[in-house]
Amino acid sequence: MSRWEPNARGRLEQAAMELYVERGFDRTTVAEIAERAGLTERTFFRHFADKREVLFAGASLLQEFLVNTVAGAPNSAAPIDAIAAALEAVGVLFEERRDGVRQRQSVIAANAELQERELIKLALLASAMAEALRRRGVTDPAASLAAEAGIAVFRIAFERWIDDTDERDLPHHIRESLAELKAVTAGR
Amino acid sequence: MSRWEPNARGRLEQAAMELYVERGFDRTTVAEIAERAGLTERTFFRHFADKREVLFAGASLLQEFLVNTVAGAPNSAAPIDAIAAALEAVGVLFEERRDGVRQRQSVIAANAELQERELIKLALLASAMAEALRRRGVTDPAASLAAEAGIAVFRIAFERWIDDTDERDLPHHIRESLAELKAVTAGR
Repeated sequence: MSRWEPNARGRLEQAAMELYVERGFDRTTVAEIAERAGLTERTFFRHFADKREVLFAGASLLQEFLVNTVAGAPNSAAPIDAIAAALEAVGVLFEERRDGVRQRQSVIAANAELQERELIKLALLASAMAEALRRRGVTDPAASLAAEAGIAVFRIAFERWIDDTDERDLPHHIRESLAELKAVTAGR
Repeated sequence: MSRWEPNARGRLEQAAMELYVERGFDRTTVAEIAERAGLTERTFFRHFADKREVLFAGASLLQEFLVNTVAGAPNSAAPIDAIAAALEAVGVLFEERRDGVRQRQSVIAANAELQERELIKLALLASAMAEALRRRGVTDPAASLAAEAGIAVFRIAFERWIDDTDERDLPHHIRESLAELKAVTAGR
């Protein structure tokens, strides 16, 4: 029964994204995703708990990547610099997958429930980065503040990147937003 | 039928909070809240859409208060100072209602769904404050960053206030967290 399907997960992800873009997240069923991918619903549920998880399955990898980059920053790096390094690295990663990231964002922007889920994901990423800073010996509230401010920088840079008609890359927007945060908190 | 009930809304709020603390949010019904308040379910639904709204009905007043304080800051105030003034004013307000605010927080902390709702509420408050800054002529991304950083400061100060065994007041924690954010973003 359970025959091996080459790259079933990737095919399901691609089929789901196509359908979410074409007809909207709410109007897409798991049966349709499986059909488009040339697979069965049973195979879908072997990879994803539900159709929402297709959009959020990458969160744990993203978290691991952020946490590892914070942990790997030089000992001499200030907390905000360790956070900035992690955000820029994610910026490069997202820029490489530009089309997929933008497609996903357009699906999320069209659906209030998905936006809420995204907000929760970002809050979890901030907590994980704060914990990574604490393991570097940064105390609270500095650890939490650096991580939360970092996620705010990322969110705002991401929005500006999505809307940027000049197509400057995401790392550019992250650096710009971080510089702006520094100016703002310095009271300028 | 619809006789006037003195302070029905306040009585319902108090009854709901008592029950949420005693037996948990999930295990409390609207019928029980109405009974404890000496009112009918029909009266409850005249004031609140559901039992969750009892905990979040104050959000729009809070938003109005924040927005007005940002708008009322002196023209010469830097964006972060306008935000700081608004947060400190809310700090004073919460400190005056210390017991109620702490009760509400204990109910929310015990329930994942309510925590998500609280997160969404804070994101909406950040958007509203950013908009208030834009009306003061602050451009983006500075307006969004100041507002988002301000909400991060508030959240972290609030958590520290809840856990503070020395019982320092909320405005103290807000000032301390803001000073720490400034130090962190300055690379210290």
